[in-house]
Amino acid sequence: MAVPGCIYDYPDTCEYSIVVTKPTDGTKGGAPPAPGRVAIPIAFTEEEMAGVRYAADGLVPAVVQDATDGTVLMVGYMNDAALRRTLATGRSWFWSRSRQEYWCKGETSGDRQWVHSVRYDCDGDALLVTVDQDGDGACHTGARSCFYRAFGDDGDAAPPAPR
Amino acid sequence: MAVPGCIYDYPDTCEYSIVVTKPTDGTKGGAPPAPGRVAIPIAFTEEEMAGVRYAADGLVPAVVQDATDGTVLMVGYMNDAALRRTLATGRSWFWSRSRQEYWCKGETSGDRQWVHSVRYDCDGDALLVTVDQDGDGACHTGARSCFYRAFGDDGDAAPPAPR
Repeated sequence: MAVPGCIYDYPDTCEYSIVVTKPTDGTKGGAPPAPGRVAIPIAFTEEEMAGVRYAADGLVPAVVQDATDGTVLMVGYMNDAALRRTLATGRSWFWSRSRQEYWCKGETSGDRQWVHSVRYDCDGDALLVTVDQDGDGACHTGARSCFYRAFGDDGDAAPPAPR
Repeated sequence: MAVPGCIYDYPDTCEYSIVVTKPTDGTKGGAPPAPGRVAIPIAFTEEEMAGVRYAADGLVPAVVQDATDGTVLMVGYMNDAALRRTLATGRSWFWSRSRQEYWCKGETSGDRQWVHSVRYDCDGDALLVTVDQDGDGACHTGARSCFYRAFGDDGDAAPPAPR
């Protein structure tokens, strides 16, 4: 099944791994994945899926955290299909509220997220996705984390590099 | 100004610190703060506040992270007033969507959150609050983190202790 906003086909089964490869047509930016980098699907159950409570708009916020150092990288939104794709492909999928389409993080920028775990909270209305972050970081500004600005005088990270 | 859902008065000025004290009437549970524990306000600017974009319901998700070890503890929601109270008091304030009232985390349970920093993301529609977490943890179940359940077989944390 071809998925809008993503350069590779999404399988309708969760039973196999996917090696995400760089397109060869030169139309997309970003560095290719490391050679042999394999995304690892997560064998979820429907009972677990039933534990997720979507808001009236069908979405749930997904906090994305660096699996190694714990940095909170970004917050995106998933619907049921984006969550299933994330679990099935081992790559982070979101629903873009502004573009009204699915996106697979890093397909254009190269800043891919390789999923380690997906957690859901006590009342099922938030997700926590731990990842290996490729590229410069998660933020479209070039910052590693989207949370590079702090209230108050002394908490801002270095300004992101131009991109 | 008395604030619904919180046992202490909320000042209309951001210019002083607050020592949050345990009520003495015996009606609330949880351990008292450590002696002399002081919440530290954050001197925010209106320019920073203007960088926050609230959803149509007036809310923005706030990811709460342990300032020491990086554990993502919970996700709550803030409106403009809850964010201002968080910054002004150095304690985490949220808007409860289910109860339709403000709550100051830990006032009943003793599981207070002492704010280190409040960040806002690149497009201003998510907050990241780093805290010292008092008590057993952030979750009403008794778990340290609300994200104690993982998709797949092997990722669940130990079940939370009864409470």
